[in-house]
Amino acid sequence: MPPVIDTTRERAHGLDQDDPLAQARAAFVVADPQLIYLDGNSLGRLPKAVFGRIQQVVQEEWGVGLIRSWNAGWWEAPRRLGEMIAPLVGAAPGEVMVSDSTSINLFKLATAAINLRPGRNRVITDEFNFPSDLYVLEGIVRFLGNRHQIIRIGADDHDIVPDLDELESAIDENTALVTLSHVTFKSGYLYDMRAITDMAHRKGALVLWDMSHSVGAVPIGLDGCDADFAIGCTYKYLNGGPGAPAFLYVNAARQEEVVSPIWGWWGEARPFDFELDYQPGAGPHRFLTGTAPMLSMLAVEAALPLVLEAGIERLRQKSVALTEYAIELTDARLLPLGFVLGSPRDPNRRGSHVSLRHPDAYRINRALIEDTHVIPDFRAPDNIRLGFAPLYTTYGEVWEAIDRICRVMSERLFEKYSTGRLGVT
Amino acid sequence: MPPVIDTTRERAHGLDQDDPLAQARAAFVVADPQLIYLDGNSLGRLPKAVFGRIQQVVQEEWGVGLIRSWNAGWWEAPRRLGEMIAPLVGAAPGEVMVSDSTSINLFKLATAAINLRPGRNRVITDEFNFPSDLYVLEGIVRFLGNRHQIIRIGADDHDIVPDLDELESAIDENTALVTLSHVTFKSGYLYDMRAITDMAHRKGALVLWDMSHSVGAVPIGLDGCDADFAIGCTYKYLNGGPGAPAFLYVNAARQEEVVSPIWGWWGEARPFDFELDYQPGAGPHRFLTGTAPMLSMLAVEAALPLVLEAGIERLRQKSVALTEYAIELTDARLLPLGFVLGSPRDPNRRGSHVSLRHPDAYRINRALIEDTHVIPDFRAPDNIRLGFAPLYTTYGEVWEAIDRICRVMSERLFEKYSTGRLGVT
Repeated sequence: MPPVIDTTRERAHGLDQDDPLAQARAAFVVADPQLIYLDGNSLGRLPKAVFGRIQQVVQEEWGVGLIRSWNAGWWEAPRRLGEMIAPLVGAAPGEVMVSDSTSINLFKLATAAINLRPGRNRVITDEFNFPSDLYVLEGIVRFLGNRHQIIRIGADDHDIVPDLDELESAIDENTALVTLSHVTFKSGYLYDMRAITDMAHRKGALVLWDMSHSVGAVPIGLDGCDADFAIGCTYKYLNGGPGAPAFLYVNAARQEEVVSPIWGWWGEARPFDFELDYQPGAGPHRFLTGTAPMLSMLAVEAALPLVLEAGIERLRQKSVALTEYAIELTDARLLPLGFVLGSPRDPNRRGSHVSLRHPDAYRINRALIEDTHVIPDFRAPDNIRLGFAPLYTTYGEVWEAIDRICRVMSERLFEKYSTGRLGVT
Repeated sequence: MPPVIDTTRERAHGLDQDDPLAQARAAFVVADPQLIYLDGNSLGRLPKAVFGRIQQVVQEEWGVGLIRSWNAGWWEAPRRLGEMIAPLVGAAPGEVMVSDSTSINLFKLATAAINLRPGRNRVITDEFNFPSDLYVLEGIVRFLGNRHQIIRIGADDHDIVPDLDELESAIDENTALVTLSHVTFKSGYLYDMRAITDMAHRKGALVLWDMSHSVGAVPIGLDGCDADFAIGCTYKYLNGGPGAPAFLYVNAARQEEVVSPIWGWWGEARPFDFELDYQPGAGPHRFLTGTAPMLSMLAVEAALPLVLEAGIERLRQKSVALTEYAIELTDARLLPLGFVLGSPRDPNRRGSHVSLRHPDAYRINRALIEDTHVIPDFRAPDNIRLGFAPLYTTYGEVWEAIDRICRVMSERLFEKYSTGRLGVT
């Protein structure tokens, strides 16, 4: 006999009452309590502290301090924010810098990594990876003279879990680099970072992890796994604001040998000597490029304490509980309506979002947004992603979202929409 | 008999009364009227409109709109801002994009340009150029396999004007690219864009201009000169805020053949199809990379109307008048104190700043900042730069700055400081 699932709203409220992180939500702007926002894995909510901080940065630091503010905290921001992020990703001081976008950080680190293995011509990734990461890799190969081959471990539209045997056999003595998304953006599959890193290292390949969909929701131990390189995003679970600068990690053991392809003055050893010949700065510092966008940078700094104070272990516990609860309700209420679970059932292999597949997913997603005030997002061909940000998503919101999906189906609210495209990663 | 120079404060006030742009200053935050800010060529003042706009972006667009704001103006910002900048640089619609930093834009465009001339192995620049630009070029050459040679037309520390004959003879049939700063950051020399572009084109070389120190102060006619590529900064005379995103220009005639080395998803033809293989977007769109930092980006948008409404011709007239006046006062009052003019005397060959050289320049600069409330900046080995932003610098401030320099010298205020380094480009 299957376990009896309590699908009542009261159960959700009980879970919220017992939630040790329930108070964290109060630190965010929740302008419309009726809106169920399940896209914090794409753009995190606005922390209240950011609003005041940005007013201060603009009015006082720029308006009054003017150029003097570069020497009163701005210039050091990439390193200072890197040190704040380091404990979230299991890095030591001096291994993380905030800089540029994830795409540019991938470009710099993947190029540097490939150049560390000059005799090897294969780069391994998979089709679960962000298309944006695959594009950057393609561009690198072209600019290095088409001497490398990108091997993408295949994935069908409906695959949830990668073929680890195929991955293992693809990594060989000609492999320079293995680069994967730690949590895949569509199914939410969570790679075993240690196992894959070890797998690559056994063949002498380097590893670069994209942590955009894991940082802030999943504990990460980069140093513990001896990962070589990593990049990550600050505007998803770290709530740094739209397009906020990304971060990069370079393992201390690899720092002195790597060379960035972009020799930026912010990464130069002594930029205020204005020497005409470039000398790289120490460690990950050399991966800084040009002047960083300070308003966006300092918004990240104001947002980070929320994740740090909640603690990544407690965030992970709540994240798992939220996704488990969403899957329970999906099993009970949505599978009978034609939905299929598009995410792993094993919480140890799942990040902080749950994908629901349905042939009408695009239209259902649109009806959720426009008719029922739920914001998930859609990923082709048939995924509705429900992102759960453990700092502010409540169990009540999970229940309400599933209930509104049922309403969209029972009232056929989606049928008035045609197919199309909408949304930003 | 030399002309009689009126060095009185009253003359400055008269010039301010006759200034047709005098009202423009009211659009900026001037927190401390005693502070003479002559570093707008490094970080422009805060426009009042930016403060309100950023509050709106944070509180309403991020806080309330959340992910929906990407489809309500954010996503289109790089192109929209590019179209605003286009008339300032003599570009047509579809030629300018706001993206990344000047260093990264130089990396992308110079790499693309060099690859358009595969049989040629020389890149010509000069030692008047930003060291930051020279670093990026060095990195590109290494990244492309050390097959190219960078020729830097030499300049001694005290050279004001480049050797155009040497430049002309350096450009040959093996030259792929000529890249220079339109206004040089130290002496403020203004290159004749048309003459140099023609000089390069006669040998079949491409040209890339760095307009960081000219845009917003000097009229620029990129299309009129048939320049190939250009980059520029938004946080100097455009007042976009600390580290605000830079811009890039690709001449329409070169757009379809160029390939960026960084294949970013923002530059992809149809990113929301999530195809695994990259297709470049049209024109300069393909030079976009990752997600742009929206707070910093939208600050630029709020700042640009001030320059556009003043009109670049009127800004140039005032800029020339300010630098002429500063040089008059320098001749009359500073040369006798051991200063040497470090900028061209011909206003047609001069940007919007004036460099003053002195053996004690570093210490004098420091005394100006700390003892007399004037903010110029220092550039090694012996330059004090006085930057004049025609939107808000007054003739009274020019007079006051020169007068305070005289006071620093007469009271020997600089002698208590030792040498060292301070300041950000």
